[in-house]
Amino acid sequence: MIPHPYLLFLGDAPDPLAAKVAQGIKDWRPDAAAGQFRLPGCNADMGLRDMTIAEAAKAGCGTLVIGVANRGGVISAEWMDVLEEALAAGMDIASGLHNLLRDEPRLVAAAEKHGRTLHDVRVPVVDYPIANGVKRSGKRCLAVGTDCSVGKMYTAMAMEKEMRAQGMDATFRATGQTGILITGDGVPLDAVIADFMAGAVEWLTPDNAADHWDLIEGQGSLFHASYSGVTMALVHGGQPDALILCHEPTRTHMRGLPTYDLPTLEDLRDTALHLARRVNPDCKVVGISINTAALGEDEANAYLAEVEERMGLPTVDPFRHGAARLVNALD
Amino acid sequence: MIPHPYLLFLGDAPDPLAAKVAQGIKDWRPDAAAGQFRLPGCNADMGLRDMTIAEAAKAGCGTLVIGVANRGGVISAEWMDVLEEALAAGMDIASGLHNLLRDEPRLVAAAEKHGRTLHDVRVPVVDYPIANGVKRSGKRCLAVGTDCSVGKMYTAMAMEKEMRAQGMDATFRATGQTGILITGDGVPLDAVIADFMAGAVEWLTPDNAADHWDLIEGQGSLFHASYSGVTMALVHGGQPDALILCHEPTRTHMRGLPTYDLPTLEDLRDTALHLARRVNPDCKVVGISINTAALGEDEANAYLAEVEERMGLPTVDPFRHGAARLVNALD
Repeated sequence: MIPHPYLLFLGDAPDPLAAKVAQGIKDWRPDAAAGQFRLPGCNADMGLRDMTIAEAAKAGCGTLVIGVANRGGVISAEWMDVLEEALAAGMDIASGLHNLLRDEPRLVAAAEKHGRTLHDVRVPVVDYPIANGVKRSGKRCLAVGTDCSVGKMYTAMAMEKEMRAQGMDATFRATGQTGILITGDGVPLDAVIADFMAGAVEWLTPDNAADHWDLIEGQGSLFHASYSGVTMALVHGGQPDALILCHEPTRTHMRGLPTYDLPTLEDLRDTALHLARRVNPDCKVVGISINTAALGEDEANAYLAEVEERMGLPTVDPFRHGAARLVNALD
Repeated sequence: MIPHPYLLFLGDAPDPLAAKVAQGIKDWRPDAAAGQFRLPGCNADMGLRDMTIAEAAKAGCGTLVIGVANRGGVISAEWMDVLEEALAAGMDIASGLHNLLRDEPRLVAAAEKHGRTLHDVRVPVVDYPIANGVKRSGKRCLAVGTDCSVGKMYTAMAMEKEMRAQGMDATFRATGQTGILITGDGVPLDAVIADFMAGAVEWLTPDNAADHWDLIEGQGSLFHASYSGVTMALVHGGQPDALILCHEPTRTHMRGLPTYDLPTLEDLRDTALHLARRVNPDCKVVGISINTAALGEDEANAYLAEVEERMGLPTVDPFRHGAARLVNALD
């Protein structure tokens, strides 16, 4: 667990998109975002209080989170001074960068000296069990997509927020780097050893109160030739009671696979449900989440109405219209 | 690649079953098995010439293969002396044991001193790529099972042997420890990082001559809650032209999952074919391999006839009757 609250390190982000991890924390865990730290030339702004390291430490920040994708894969000297200062001030550091904090001798030495922890959230730190398939108490919802990067994390986050607003007992369960940094906990599923994938998902979504819902972050797609095995482990390890189908209507081919068409929503529904019922015979497909970012308002509404009519399921873009209809479709 | 031929180390095997890796090498790669080495108390015998280390070195053995499951997970002192002697005599050592050769300081030192390699085949040594899903030349056959351990490796091995006997161009592609030790090469798929599973299978079964067949060793089952993700990666990374359905008819529940029934062969056929056609629209289910070891001759024949009639596909037990009918069903 990564100690809250966070100081969001935006570094020298060239544009707001480079700071999407920080944006995610700000959007979904605003209470966890105590302030931001920007270097000269930073073009991202979360609208949080700019803090020095000393101010952040005084404000009780437990962790400096690297909320920005760095340039060139190298942790620059400018960054290094700030990170070392944060460790000296009593903060942990958390990062989802490809180049690991633990591979930086200066940071390792400073963390040791000051008794702090470097959280590289790409690297599993738990010895996950082999999945046992035993039915767990509590309820679970999993977002599955026609493709990668169609809004599965956003959908689960938006549903968690809506459920909490309605007074329901719900927990977003992160399975990727960004989700783990946002919530401070989770499983970096794409970095887990093959034999333990489904067990890691079981571990992440344990027995719970009968009316508690886990909102499990989806990964990949059952139809994506590169990552389908990871998705399969989510379906079988997650033991979902409810599936949400996710889709991006302007995608012309599978992400990274130019010769592969997207599957239909009907195919996704039938395939995912058949596989999910293997571990939970009561699983249902309850709704559809469409990422309509590339469509105008009228076009988006027309598309949603068409899909809803065709599929007979509540169909929304949770970013435009909220996730209430998806949440209300849960039993 | 593990250097051939092998000296099969049977150690102090308490019974023949403990030496099943050695038996597999003897059965499927008899040319690779130059001799055997037994310690006092060994109750396994491959019928090969018993050799001292010096004799094996003189006979040109490239590798001492640990062909036996050790007791208690510890490489005993008796073993250690022999293994060190083999390295000194110029042989590599290969092992699929859970406890790794590389964690034994004496062996590491001896290997370094004599310029030999310790092959721990449970541990991936290649940086596998992310799968790209691009159609490859040549043909591929994959065995998929209703459950784990129903004869998928045996089926692929038997088909390779039959194809070679018929003058066809065929290669067994190992995806597990035993298969890798038998053939000297392969991918330990259950130990690969999730994101690279399908890419590892693509790497293992590259472009080939138009009439060449890869016989890909199956793993797990699409219906097994613990390991289905690994199987999915084989289906999508393997890009099979032909699927063989494998089944063991007396199994009362999924291996290790007491509350899970086995799927029907019909469900396996439909599910595996639908998923496989995602990467190869021409994929076909061509035959069924039944492990009838637990049935008498009449009972086995009756069961095979019943399944063949019901499914409309050649149905054999390759151990009892050979794999010719499966091979002849390939296009």
